[in-house]
Amino acid sequence: MVSKNQIKLIASLHQKKYRDQNGLFIAEGFKVINELLHSDFELQNIYQTTALFSEKQLPVTTVSETDLNKMSALKTANNCLAVFKMAPEQAIAPQGFQLVLDDVRDPGNLGTIIRLCDWFGIPQLICSLQTADLYNPKVVQATMGSMTRVRVIYTDLSAYLSSTNLPIMGTFMDGVNVYATPLPKEGILILGNEANGISSAVEALVQQRLAIPRFGAVQKTESLNVATAAAIFLSEMRRRD
Amino acid sequence: MVSKNQIKLIASLHQKKYRDQNGLFIAEGFKVINELLHSDFELQNIYQTTALFSEKQLPVTTVSETDLNKMSALKTANNCLAVFKMAPEQAIAPQGFQLVLDDVRDPGNLGTIIRLCDWFGIPQLICSLQTADLYNPKVVQATMGSMTRVRVIYTDLSAYLSSTNLPIMGTFMDGVNVYATPLPKEGILILGNEANGISSAVEALVQQRLAIPRFGAVQKTESLNVATAAAIFLSEMRRRD
Repeated sequence: MVSKNQIKLIASLHQKKYRDQNGLFIAEGFKVINELLHSDFELQNIYQTTALFSEKQLPVTTVSETDLNKMSALKTANNCLAVFKMAPEQAIAPQGFQLVLDDVRDPGNLGTIIRLCDWFGIPQLICSLQTADLYNPKVVQATMGSMTRVRVIYTDLSAYLSSTNLPIMGTFMDGVNVYATPLPKEGILILGNEANGISSAVEALVQQRLAIPRFGAVQKTESLNVATAAAIFLSEMRRRD
Repeated sequence: MVSKNQIKLIASLHQKKYRDQNGLFIAEGFKVINELLHSDFELQNIYQTTALFSEKQLPVTTVSETDLNKMSALKTANNCLAVFKMAPEQAIAPQGFQLVLDDVRDPGNLGTIIRLCDWFGIPQLICSLQTADLYNPKVVQATMGSMTRVRVIYTDLSAYLSSTNLPIMGTFMDGVNVYATPLPKEGILILGNEANGISSAVEALVQQRLAIPRFGAVQKTESLNVATAAAIFLSEMRRRD
């Protein structure tokens, strides 16, 4: 059984304000929950309509489909939903290759980029404070478990970029051809907002402007989606290893 | 003014069955409509809540927000929606580089891939009959106008691939490293379904199996999203030109 108040609390976690207040977030579906269970994230409780999770030590509550639908952030709830504790904030490791997002707002894009970092072995993703929230249910679902293996850190980008000694690269429509440019093994690569690109405050700190060249005969495509651009830049980074 | 029957007809175009019956599809928002107006697609009518399109020769109807919302496939309608005629079916041009989709079901993925084809100058995208419909309102929106510059052709893949003389490459988890493999300038590259990859009937016709190598230390990421994989393969194709 699950109380009305409990359902209300869990449904409130769809909103960032209440996630931050409670330090909790939700994950849905067996696969994503299972990946989180085998990570450093701490489980609070699993709610399921059928016996999916049955290890004795797990806190599990069986609920009706109706109740699960009330908690769920999906159009139609899966057969399980779990509440996890948010991870403590982490510091940025000062070395290595770092991907930086300047106000990427779409949760699906953030989720896809986290998945790409995992694939290409990028251990930390640094996000501006206005970037979509890691714990947004749509991000959690889109990462497909990759959020357990990539450290996502929110910080004031101008302050961080002013303090680092790493070379700073940014992606722009008018940058130099990335295919023909040497890329440092240690460095920072910045991707900008879906509509506006990199903000002027951050742009002022960029040392090298990179671009993916266009090949279309009629060159009208405005820009690549930020997640597909991330895919191409990370691939470029790694293919030269 | 717009009649109730007209609203009903337009709302029915959210579904493939009625698009096919009427030979019509909808596009929403100034930018997408404007790109379609400057293409071979034939306009039937524009519905707008404010005077966005005002050239005299354009068939435009001013409607209320309420009526536009009834026609719209978006959660909240934009300020304009247009009905266009579907393009006549086209034949596959037998040469060049061709991207093939084997049952890519997500409209957002199809839209993103069409945008990538436009960026990388791939003139035709060949889709299995079960691939998401080009005229699905979500696809139309996701292409951001690129559908006016990329020929999307639906066909029986097994029949087509059996009849072509072009080299056939497919993307698989266990393929050879694409970074270290020569790619022909003329050829076919197949991407598979989001959950199941390339179907066994199509797999049997593949001559070269390609993969994007994983770099993550803990190699758990199941696969890349099909649109991000498309981005990386097309980038590989073009960077060598």
